[in-house]
Amino acid sequence: MNYTLNHLPERDAKPREKGYTMAMDKGLSIREVEDFIEVAGEYVDIVKLGWSTSYVVPNLQGKLDVYKAAGIPVYFGGTLFEAFIIRNKFDEYRRILDKYELQYAEVSDGSIELPHEDKCNYIRTLAEQVTVLSEVGSKDDQKIIPPYKWISLMQAELDAGAWKVIGEAREGGNVGLFRSTGEVRSGLVEEILTKIPFEKIIWEAPQKEQQVWFVKLLGANVNLGNISPKEVVPLETIRLGLRGDTFLHFINLNEVQ
Amino acid sequence: MNYTLNHLPERDAKPREKGYTMAMDKGLSIREVEDFIEVAGEYVDIVKLGWSTSYVVPNLQGKLDVYKAAGIPVYFGGTLFEAFIIRNKFDEYRRILDKYELQYAEVSDGSIELPHEDKCNYIRTLAEQVTVLSEVGSKDDQKIIPPYKWISLMQAELDAGAWKVIGEAREGGNVGLFRSTGEVRSGLVEEILTKIPFEKIIWEAPQKEQQVWFVKLLGANVNLGNISPKEVVPLETIRLGLRGDTFLHFINLNEVQ
Amino acid sequence: MNYTLNHLPERDAKPREKGYTMAMDKGLSIREVEDFIEVAGEYVDIVKLGWSTSYVVPNLQGKLDVYKAAGIPVYFGGTLFEAFIIRNKFDEYRRILDKYELQYAEVSDGSIELPHEDKCNYIRTLAEQVTVLSEVGSKDDQKIIPPYKWISLMQAELDAGAWKVIGEAREGGNVGLFRSTGEVRSGLVEEILTKIPFEKIIWEAPQKEQQVWFVKLLGANVNLGNISPKEVVPLETIRLGLRGDTFLHFINLNEVQ
Repeated sequence: MNYTLNHLPERDAKPREKGYTMAMDKGLSIREVEDFIEVAGEYVDIVKLGWSTSYVVPNLQGKLDVYKAAGIPVYFGGTLFEAFIIRNKFDEYRRILDKYELQYAEVSDGSIELPHEDKCNYIRTLAEQVTVLSEVGSKDDQKIIPPYKWISLMQAELDAGAWKVIGEAREGGNVGLFRSTGEVRSGLVEEILTKIPFEKIIWEAPQKEQQVWFVKLLGANVNLGNISPKEVVPLETIRLGLRGDTFLHFINLNEVQ
Repeated sequence: MNYTLNHLPERDAKPREKGYTMAMDKGLSIREVEDFIEVAGEYVDIVKLGWSTSYVVPNLQGKLDVYKAAGIPVYFGGTLFEAFIIRNKFDEYRRILDKYELQYAEVSDGSIELPHEDKCNYIRTLAEQVTVLSEVGSKDDQKIIPPYKWISLMQAELDAGAWKVIGEAREGGNVGLFRSTGEVRSGLVEEILTKIPFEKIIWEAPQKEQQVWFVKLLGANVNLGNISPKEVVPLETIRLGLRGDTFLHFINLNEVQ
Repeated sequence: MNYTLNHLPERDAKPREKGYTMAMDKGLSIREVEDFIEVAGEYVDIVKLGWSTSYVVPNLQGKLDVYKAAGIPVYFGGTLFEAFIIRNKFDEYRRILDKYELQYAEVSDGSIELPHEDKCNYIRTLAEQVTVLSEVGSKDDQKIIPPYKWISLMQAELDAGAWKVIGEAREGGNVGLFRSTGEVRSGLVEEILTKIPFEKIIWEAPQKEQQVWFVKLLGANVNLGNISPKEVVPLETIRLGLRGDTFLHFINLNEVQ
């Protein structure tokens, strides 16, 4: 850090199991990736190439090289997995992960209907090849999954070999964990946390108010995802109680003064 | 593309008459233009320098050179045309187009009152010098033009020599084709399409939901405009059915599996 | 300018007392700062490193060097001042300003409770070291300060040595001067202006509609702040009546035609 400030919440150091920040790259140029790493490389733990953007970007290999040199793992968005599954091309998907030497993969069913046993089987198989992140929740705002169901899905996916489970919110932050207004379904989150250890969950929380809500509920070291590259530094200040929104949350006024 | 995915909607190749993506540059630096082209040069067909930003940006000539080298035509936003017209300086405007060797120009009346005959005369004159895009619709959210009027304006402007007509939405996507909430005036769009060939229209659609709506209605090869440079790659995935929003739209489940 | 347009409102030249644009850098890379200066260096008067982002960005010194070389002063967001004050480390804050050779500092109480006499004392002390900007208004949207109170706070802070006072709005533009919807509290602004000279106030106005509102009320040379780096060029066109929103505001139709 550039100067000393005491009485800040403790942050786990990278590589870490919690306090994880997953950012979404939806089409950065090579230079933009370099700039992102210059500014936020210390704070970002993993990068998702949003949905199927890896199919169309012409700089895929170059980008992967830059992230790799910076020690930041990259994975393809779950929608790409689904694009291969719906075409009955799972083996081809596995070959592509190898071709690009990816160490992580996401398994999701946000856009397709997939029997949960099949989903768990995909997790099981992929877990032999890579570290698996599995995502729970639909991209369809009409499909409301009740809390007990979120819990049983998450638990089954962790049991099948997922390293962490992701709570769906999309790039917009308006489905799954959130109402269409972006408001957190707080009862859902709190019920999930009665059963699933908080370090096993990455909460997609693209909007600032959502990030603030999770940091206030779960502390500086909550795992958050779908963070825009430009918002990784702002998020770090929210985690540290150095932005207005969490400024008074972490401070014990008797201690500091 | 980086790997093979079958059963995707067919996309016309550049240069194309439909499936056109018009992006808006409202003040990119030279390097940002280079980055934009690296990432999205294959997908963007034409770039508009938003409204009158070309007047104030200090890097105008340099920018034009970079776009030109990449084979991407550039034109000045219609508001600049109007700024010259309201000052009674049409000839000066024509000289500026020549000075910067522009091949395209926009004729619009979004901010000024212009008798339609005059507008068509400007189109006619400019069409001898450049390829003309003409824009229909007001930037004033209080001015609601009925569908039959949109149609007659568009037809007259095409007859006067406009290569394509643009449906107004502004950078925000909240006027003209859209309600102030950003919702598409769908009856208007469908009525226009009963009379004007869809490849002759570029729909300004800066918001993702608007892009999705048009792609679902008119297919992968709809012409869309006012796309933010950062959203050209995401839009391409929407066109291809590779983002959640259109994922199931293009796929015939019997065919793929 | 790239070409001639007459009948534009006059803009004061830099360095200026009014028509001031304060931009917010919340984590730009070195190259992004260079790009920002290439595009908007002529139009931006001062840059704030948003809230406490200067604590976490790894490129702080490099960034300050680039801004300095371009002649653009930089200051740390008021929240950083408050982070030191709440820890009872004012002297350390002063040393940090010296260490980074900053010429400006902000004094605010947007996140902490600070007796106004104490705030004015901080202004007084800092004014011996740097040029002080002081900010009025809470970041808490529940704390509504009545207009007469805004006026007496602003006047006292100017009397204590603040060079200009800033009206709070945050990065989002949804507190202080604005309702939670972003709408301007216009009665508040107009009442403030009956007592405080308009060149002494910088209005935080991150949203386009807010910028337009202020330019229409106070003219091209209103002082505006919390402008995103990407919006400095668009704002300049709003000031000049070259964007749809203010297009007809500055023009005297009898004069131009």
